[in-house]
Amino acid sequence: MRGASSPVTGVLLGLLVERAGYAYEFAQRVNERMGPAWRLTPSSIYPLLDRLESEGLARRVVKDLPGRPRQRERIMYHATDKTRPALERWMARPVRKEPLRTELLAKIAVARPEDAPLLVAALDDYERDCLVLSRAAHEERPRVGAWSALLSNLIEASTEMHLKAELEWVAVARRLIDELATSIERG
Amino acid sequence: MRGASSPVTGVLLGLLVERAGYAYEFAQRVNERMGPAWRLTPSSIYPLLDRLESEGLARRVVKDLPGRPRQRERIMYHATDKTRPALERWMARPVRKEPLRTELLAKIAVARPEDAPLLVAALDDYERDCLVLSRAAHEERPRVGAWSALLSNLIEASTEMHLKAELEWVAVARRLIDELATSIERG
Repeated sequence: MRGASSPVTGVLLGLLVERAGYAYEFAQRVNERMGPAWRLTPSSIYPLLDRLESEGLARRVVKDLPGRPRQRERIMYHATDKTRPALERWMARPVRKEPLRTELLAKIAVARPEDAPLLVAALDDYERDCLVLSRAAHEERPRVGAWSALLSNLIEASTEMHLKAELEWVAVARRLIDELATSIERG
Repeated sequence: MRGASSPVTGVLLGLLVERAGYAYEFAQRVNERMGPAWRLTPSSIYPLLDRLESEGLARRVVKDLPGRPRQRERIMYHATDKTRPALERWMARPVRKEPLRTELLAKIAVARPEDAPLLVAALDDYERDCLVLSRAAHEERPRVGAWSALLSNLIEASTEMHLKAELEWVAVARRLIDELATSIERG
């Protein structure tokens, strides 16, 4: 795994080492493990598996499944000799705080006073989306053993605390924009 | 501006409409506007300006600056007739909550109990980085007028509330990992 790789690629290395599976199973397993806030679709996972294969970090085995005519559904991905060492290197790599670049903050940064209604609409969209994720994050996921339950809880707590902070900020932002837009309208 | 564009590109459209400038000035202005949590370098801004130019959303003017031999330092970027309409389309585009995909959560998701020390080290890195950003976010930035001060405050508050939630989560995560790792070691 060269240079900057996505966090999802790291998760896939870990899941490959745990056990082999079909591409769509990896997509499901990533979603179970990371929760809905990662917003991952199978079609975003498949190219990552293919890249791992091209780097020798996964091995494809095409199964003869008569009821499954589509090529993609018949491909199993296995770990190779290089998968675990790559996972260990990735696990030991220093961690940084990712940049906080969001569409909503970008819009706020360059908005003019007449854009206030668009900003309020954008805050509403954002809030609704955060609430959907927040509810989805609380759905029960399988937890086997104390260690795996701990990791699930940490990921869930991270999502929850993040969304809570976002929702609090949205409430502040909407109130301040409303107040100032009203005072500008009044002159 | 086609399909999915980065939030930074939207900020650049807004800044172009406000006034023309050299590439390095746009890099400075984006950083002043968005704050340190966006972690933007001039070298990440230049290709975005060039892409805007190739799409007709910015116009380059190469200035004759005798003291500045390097090509890049002599290029000014101006808005075109298409810049403001593109900015308005982008401003009205629906906003979604971005995915929460971080290297740290990815590592937590696939860590084995023997990785506990690596996770604690990763949490330490992350915490240190959050604290650096948190201090940097409080540095005074120029604010002209009530509207622009409001927008700066909203961006600063977003960063602050986000980092605060992350730091609270790190403290919880480190304690729980420590406790469980100790109890596993003891059998």
